[in-house]
Amino acid sequence: MKTLASYVQGRWHIGSGASATLYNPTTEEPLASASSGGIDFRAVLEHARSVGGPALRAMTFGQRAEMLDRLSKAIHAHRDELIEISIQNAGTTRGDAKFDIDGAIGTLAAYARTGAELGAKSFLYDGPGVQLGRTARFWGEHVLVPRLGAAVHVNAFNFPAWNMMEKAACALLAGAPVIEKPGTPTALLAWRIAELVVASGAVPEGGYQFIAGSVGDLLDHMTSQDSLAFTGSSHTAAKLRGHGQLVKHNVRVNLEADSLNAAVLAPDVEAGSDTFNLFVANVALDMAQKTGQKCTAVRRVLVPRERVDELAAEIQAALAAYKVGDPADATTRMGPLASADQLRDVRAGIERLAKSARSVCGGAAPIRDKGYFVAPTLFVAPDARTSVVHTDEVFGPVATILPYAGSAREAVELVGLGGGSLVTSVYSNDVAFLETAALGIGAWSGRVWLGSDKMAEQALAPGMVLPQMIHGGPGRAGGGEELGALRGLAFYLQRVALQGFKGVIAPESFALANSAQTRQGAGAP
Amino acid sequence: MKTLASYVQGRWHIGSGASATLYNPTTEEPLASASSGGIDFRAVLEHARSVGGPALRAMTFGQRAEMLDRLSKAIHAHRDELIEISIQNAGTTRGDAKFDIDGAIGTLAAYARTGAELGAKSFLYDGPGVQLGRTARFWGEHVLVPRLGAAVHVNAFNFPAWNMMEKAACALLAGAPVIEKPGTPTALLAWRIAELVVASGAVPEGGYQFIAGSVGDLLDHMTSQDSLAFTGSSHTAAKLRGHGQLVKHNVRVNLEADSLNAAVLAPDVEAGSDTFNLFVANVALDMAQKTGQKCTAVRRVLVPRERVDELAAEIQAALAAYKVGDPADATTRMGPLASADQLRDVRAGIERLAKSARSVCGGAAPIRDKGYFVAPTLFVAPDARTSVVHTDEVFGPVATILPYAGSAREAVELVGLGGGSLVTSVYSNDVAFLETAALGIGAWSGRVWLGSDKMAEQALAPGMVLPQMIHGGPGRAGGGEELGALRGLAFYLQRVALQGFKGVIAPESFALANSAQTRQGAGAP
Repeated sequence: MKTLASYVQGRWHIGSGASATLYNPTTEEPLASASSGGIDFRAVLEHARSVGGPALRAMTFGQRAEMLDRLSKAIHAHRDELIEISIQNAGTTRGDAKFDIDGAIGTLAAYARTGAELGAKSFLYDGPGVQLGRTARFWGEHVLVPRLGAAVHVNAFNFPAWNMMEKAACALLAGAPVIEKPGTPTALLAWRIAELVVASGAVPEGGYQFIAGSVGDLLDHMTSQDSLAFTGSSHTAAKLRGHGQLVKHNVRVNLEADSLNAAVLAPDVEAGSDTFNLFVANVALDMAQKTGQKCTAVRRVLVPRERVDELAAEIQAALAAYKVGDPADATTRMGPLASADQLRDVRAGIERLAKSARSVCGGAAPIRDKGYFVAPTLFVAPDARTSVVHTDEVFGPVATILPYAGSAREAVELVGLGGGSLVTSVYSNDVAFLETAALGIGAWSGRVWLGSDKMAEQALAPGMVLPQMIHGGPGRAGGGEELGALRGLAFYLQRVALQGFKGVIAPESFALANSAQTRQGAGAP
Repeated sequence: MKTLASYVQGRWHIGSGASATLYNPTTEEPLASASSGGIDFRAVLEHARSVGGPALRAMTFGQRAEMLDRLSKAIHAHRDELIEISIQNAGTTRGDAKFDIDGAIGTLAAYARTGAELGAKSFLYDGPGVQLGRTARFWGEHVLVPRLGAAVHVNAFNFPAWNMMEKAACALLAGAPVIEKPGTPTALLAWRIAELVVASGAVPEGGYQFIAGSVGDLLDHMTSQDSLAFTGSSHTAAKLRGHGQLVKHNVRVNLEADSLNAAVLAPDVEAGSDTFNLFVANVALDMAQKTGQKCTAVRRVLVPRERVDELAAEIQAALAAYKVGDPADATTRMGPLASADQLRDVRAGIERLAKSARSVCGGAAPIRDKGYFVAPTLFVAPDARTSVVHTDEVFGPVATILPYAGSAREAVELVGLGGGSLVTSVYSNDVAFLETAALGIGAWSGRVWLGSDKMAEQALAPGMVLPQMIHGGPGRAGGGEELGALRGLAFYLQRVALQGFKGVIAPESFALANSAQTRQGAGAP
């Protein structure tokens, strides 16, 4: 059994005291243990602030981009090994493992490209300048400068690779030193990546720290220039948002929480059309991929009332192709849930849904003797307003078909009953339907994905999060925002209004705008 | 004695039960009473959401801009009356009354111009689109669409006109229905403006509601599409941030709190130069204007160590020109504090500072028999790191000179000891000093104001908040952001990533991008 170490204050630390055990969710065999006992979390934060931060801020965007590129390559060089670890500890199929690991590699590479375009700059201008006086002598600009604190990332168990590196990519490119804490049940993969990050030497000392196990009292030592980004359950998200120390010191908090994402089929979509086929394939994919343990997975499927049986049969057929079994087996398309806790919660959730909705396929019953397996499970709700369907997320391969009358307005209202989603997908070739749905659902979603014949052939599924587009959502989804190219850096930067002589503050005048060398020489922190 | 009514659910409501009394701070005579007793706050929120919101969202930006223009003109038409009310209830001089009232008129007019430029649009694109597929068929855009909740504004007592209307201007232009709650001690002016707003008929029913007195249990009924913007003390700000209902429902919260703003004099600035004179005049102005009851007022004055006595004498002389007395008297340049509570707090604050710093002028002693008067008070701290100077804000005409060695780096560090400020001003003709200070102080400030000879003649003082520039600051200053032209609308909008066929979502294709008519016809909320 492996013992996962933490990388803190420039060295690997083996935790003391009680430890958590990581399992192989296919075999239920213990694989590793993790403990953060003995770590001085106050010192970890201070190491990030006083050693990592100044080193990162002394680099230009271009230099930080090179760092991300090196990290991307370091992980890519061990891709096969990492896939094996993912299969073993997260129970992912090969395809699901790649989804996570290639997501990490690709997001780092994408931010490396974004950063390279910024080149020798060390801060960003935000929008055009504005004349404030009678003449242009008294001028205003907005700039984004690095904050001076630590970036604490509390990551979800379902994407140990991608979730850590999409957060780290934005923070490191912005110049913020990171402290990464993976979800413990699948931390073996995150820990191995942490080893690769440290061994690469790409990140200056203090810029990257890694906690295996609990964060202990770390939050109690955070102060106003620090930031906390969390991905996980909406329940934990609410607890973090109200945390006394974070509230008192006005620590920046970004939350990305599970939500009840919806897919909407418009009445105009005919059976057999490209859009229809895309809808069925994507619903099945976004249910079964990562065994439904995906914050962007589809939970609610809106279908015109008279077509419910037709679509239930189609989705059931598509799900049947997802052969459940040992993820190490090449023919398996859906592995187990990641942990015994997840299995317990998903089974309980299926049982709750079964009280209000009709089962099409799947269910709570065990489907294998060993391992945390559950069947792809589809329900049909008798009424689209059935409360449990909009409030009770089951974090597994489980979705419910909701019959609706077919207007865009009703779809908007029903999506809204979920209280805020990360992504909503809408399938139609009726432009008016798409536009109405997009703007109306927009208030309830961080991302709206519009499927139609014209893009069907090359579209990536709605469950896929891209570095170019923001990821997050209002209300239940946490209210946060990540990624979205440079938008994802704003959380780690302070937007500042500058007022003064144009010859000092405008981009063409500001000596520092194009030279970090000058900045360092001049002694800014 | 007047009884202030609330405007809720389409009618004026006289509160029942216990009421608060408003005074004339010059004479201590009671002027009016305010009570929100009997208001059903849940219904007030629902009225905003279900009546005001849809009406505002059915308008284009251009139509909402016309609404703001009408409000600006309605207030301007009663400017003289409003100035008298301000003198009477807030104890402002004529000049200070204009600062507040013209701020309201000007901010509304500025946002009317900003909105007019957007014309017939009903939502905003955010940045350029991006190709997501092999070809441009699969495309990404980011848009900003109106949120569907109520915008609750809890405003500060010190700017009853400006603070209400700068918040309302952004919210209403974004399409969010407002519920305005003024600071009670000076609510007479806000209430009279509310009467003008309602009488103007400019805002559709439900788009503007007004609470005289306490907000009661209003916060307990807020949900995830609502937003709360608060201006006031950092103590209250922290309480609101941790409020159970707001945390649980992930209500958006923007806080703008008092902070310990600093002015920094660089060593290169010679006595008698334009920059020197500007520094002395601005420090005195930002101490004495509004009797120091200004969230952007200067509290800490960094001066090169060997020049402390010189600057103390200069600032003292400038303060001597601020004749304290009855604000109705045209020769008076500084009126009383706004309330007995403020007087008590300011006197206690002066006494605390006096224990650690040497008094140059002023003090805690009463200076008139009646009224809430206090003298402009200047201290010199023996050591720039004296803790109380960086942690203890005295919300009156009180500042402390801090001696420093004269490097930009040290200035950055000392400003940071305040834990986050709304604005910091730096005076120098040394471009390297200005640039280093701007970027370093930037992490600690929402706005950095750079004074130099080249702009001295036409610069507005750092204490002045302009609609073109963001207003807010990190840490102790609340962590929020208001104004900044269109930036100020983002708080009331949801940023949404759209993915789909370029021919549907790109600005040149999106039928709705240029026509709210289409949007209404298509039935979006």
